[in-house]
Amino acid sequence: MGAFCDLTKEELMRVYETEKNRLEQFRLQELSINMARGRPCAEQLDLSDDLLDLNRDRLGIYSEDGMDCRNYGGLLGLSEVRRLFGEIMDFPAQNVIACGSSSLQLMFDYIAQCMTHGTGGFRPWYLNDNRKFIAIVPGYDRHFAIAEYFGLRMINVPMTAAGPDMDAVEELVKDPDVKGMFCVPKYSNPDGITYSDETVERLARLAPAAEDFRVIWDEAYIVHDLYEPGDVLKSIYAEAKKYGHQDHFVAFASTSKITFAGAGLAAIAASDRNFREIEARMTRQIISFDKVNQLRHAYLYKNLDDIKRQMRRHAAILRPKFEAVRDILHEELDGTDIADWTDPNGGYFISFSVKTGSARQVGRICKDCGLILTGVGATYPYGNDPFDANIRIAPSCPTAEELKTAARILCAATRLSAAAKLLGVTEAWK
Amino acid sequence: MGAFCDLTKEELMRVYETEKNRLEQFRLQELSINMARGRPCAEQLDLSDDLLDLNRDRLGIYSEDGMDCRNYGGLLGLSEVRRLFGEIMDFPAQNVIACGSSSLQLMFDYIAQCMTHGTGGFRPWYLNDNRKFIAIVPGYDRHFAIAEYFGLRMINVPMTAAGPDMDAVEELVKDPDVKGMFCVPKYSNPDGITYSDETVERLARLAPAAEDFRVIWDEAYIVHDLYEPGDVLKSIYAEAKKYGHQDHFVAFASTSKITFAGAGLAAIAASDRNFREIEARMTRQIISFDKVNQLRHAYLYKNLDDIKRQMRRHAAILRPKFEAVRDILHEELDGTDIADWTDPNGGYFISFSVKTGSARQVGRICKDCGLILTGVGATYPYGNDPFDANIRIAPSCPTAEELKTAARILCAATRLSAAAKLLGVTEAWK
Repeated sequence: MGAFCDLTKEELMRVYETEKNRLEQFRLQELSINMARGRPCAEQLDLSDDLLDLNRDRLGIYSEDGMDCRNYGGLLGLSEVRRLFGEIMDFPAQNVIACGSSSLQLMFDYIAQCMTHGTGGFRPWYLNDNRKFIAIVPGYDRHFAIAEYFGLRMINVPMTAAGPDMDAVEELVKDPDVKGMFCVPKYSNPDGITYSDETVERLARLAPAAEDFRVIWDEAYIVHDLYEPGDVLKSIYAEAKKYGHQDHFVAFASTSKITFAGAGLAAIAASDRNFREIEARMTRQIISFDKVNQLRHAYLYKNLDDIKRQMRRHAAILRPKFEAVRDILHEELDGTDIADWTDPNGGYFISFSVKTGSARQVGRICKDCGLILTGVGATYPYGNDPFDANIRIAPSCPTAEELKTAARILCAATRLSAAAKLLGVTEAWK
Repeated sequence: MGAFCDLTKEELMRVYETEKNRLEQFRLQELSINMARGRPCAEQLDLSDDLLDLNRDRLGIYSEDGMDCRNYGGLLGLSEVRRLFGEIMDFPAQNVIACGSSSLQLMFDYIAQCMTHGTGGFRPWYLNDNRKFIAIVPGYDRHFAIAEYFGLRMINVPMTAAGPDMDAVEELVKDPDVKGMFCVPKYSNPDGITYSDETVERLARLAPAAEDFRVIWDEAYIVHDLYEPGDVLKSIYAEAKKYGHQDHFVAFASTSKITFAGAGLAAIAASDRNFREIEARMTRQIISFDKVNQLRHAYLYKNLDDIKRQMRRHAAILRPKFEAVRDILHEELDGTDIADWTDPNGGYFISFSVKTGSARQVGRICKDCGLILTGVGATYPYGNDPFDANIRIAPSCPTAEELKTAARILCAATRLSAAAKLLGVTEAWK
């Protein structure tokens, strides 16, 4: 059909009427499809049901160090789990703490620690009324929510195909009030972009004015390849050490999308100095994390190869879902010049961009037709997408059939919205 | 034998020599008995091994509300677990949040929330440089460690047989900088005292100058009776509501000493207003707690009766241990007027008091003879027992045989120390 901007008024009217009718048909079906969050689907969770079936005979109660996992003790977690996360995260095992079920909680608590106690011997962030954080956009709404909660004023830095715009980052960190940033360096949320070697190197070299600058390095999708070979991310720890900058980075990971989303393990990995600070806080915060669940995980996953095997099973479930969506996007939108989207090699999202000023409208139309997307705007700090253009697609949870329907609705809404815009129709939908 | 102060110099010399010889015998055995912490013993943990043996067939994966417990979601926890903790804690289920494995973490995080965000609409505690907390002494070292971490200056209030000295509490809360207190209202740590009805009523009626005054109501031993009937604690929620003071109290409990110490469940219970504040914070902090472990617990414990049945099994293991220690304390120290101790109906500790200025010495002698006690002084803020008199005995973990030996060592050390003091011997031991 070609680019919408080349269509005649009559052609656009036809598109407009066609899509309106199509959407009306969807609306009448009273669908309820939720693509809002990056939740694993039930078949993915089934892959880890062994965690439910390990009994005392198989599992025992002792860690490899002979600790009774049912009791108190062992704040830093089981050695075998620390080693496993060390492999996953590319950190020495002794720099890893194996914790509870949520890496988000670990990030929140780490920022809280910087707020009330500072880091690196510098004054608590709380005492700086101008404290700021770099927000890579589009990004993860739950990261932004933590920064907002703690009053870290967010400054947008655009994502590029190679990671955050490093020129912008290097400029911003000259401000001593800029205290850090959240990064999802592999298969970023929502774009699915893996930081290039150059980006990792420039981040490692970064010399911020704030000596207590901290990058929250969220390895949420570090082993979450959809295709093989997956993207390769340079080790931030090894790279930062070259410059003596290892204190700038605190890394987080979890098995939420490896085993059970709500009942997996999370870990934190940090330089010696950051590790000591975190341990000192945790010593006051908790006696020990759930070591029985750590023992269960260690029983099933001895090393990175075991994890990779599991991730291939996930990929086999997820790949067709991503492809179902992409195929329809290509079919309906290629060449129209009204939308762009990413084709990530892994992660949980497709980032979908429509014409500036249209995303909210597209989201509203989809919702009316029974398709719930991530709140439009959520991929920007304060829920405010200045271009009103980005929509996050989370294909993991719906069934293949639902995904096809969802993609059709999204395409129809996008086409309707674009046609209406070009026609100057203000009330495109109802 | 009678009171030590009535003994002649010769009699005291005989005691001194006898105990020194006895201790020397212990020392030569190279014992290693740890009575430092209130850890359950392995037989107690065995009582909950069903938690390890529940498989998917028995357990299923759905909560009573039909939630897949393996996935994200359900921040407030399973309805059935909220109801269970509501019964345990005497709060309406809708005021309870069922969380992860650690109640200490919930307390720490709640104080952190008051620090950075305040409570009740008042300014963050962090902004008050004179912030203070009432510390009931002797008390729980981990509570004190949290207060110290957040720079809450602790003011000692003595424990009485009926709970904290309420005259002192009522006086102190006239100071608007006094922001709260930690309470272990049933079987207090370490005294094993349950607050009397009058104490609970006076706490409920309390009208602190600080409108953001908060009592951390730690129901650590709320169902942990050693004898039946156990002590009865008045419901703080019901009582506080009479005066519209329910916002002054935030309650915490866990199954750490009901099921697995390191892999149980913890809960927080709070007034509507406090609940909303806590939920608002948690919404940013975590997606959901480990609901699979909640499901396991809900499968085994449907209601308070199930919990009480379990606690009777614990009591059957713990009672002889407490009694072994007490019998020896009575045998060796009755009438000597050199030591006092509590005879609690439940909880995890016996609080043992020696002559002013002697506890550190007794602790040192015990350590030399292979008996590790809770660090002397730890039951006071900043590790500073102004009387150097209190020693916490934790009889749960050692075996009955070890406990008898431990009690003998403690008695011998106490007698040696007292005799030396009366004799004016400065170097009582080595």
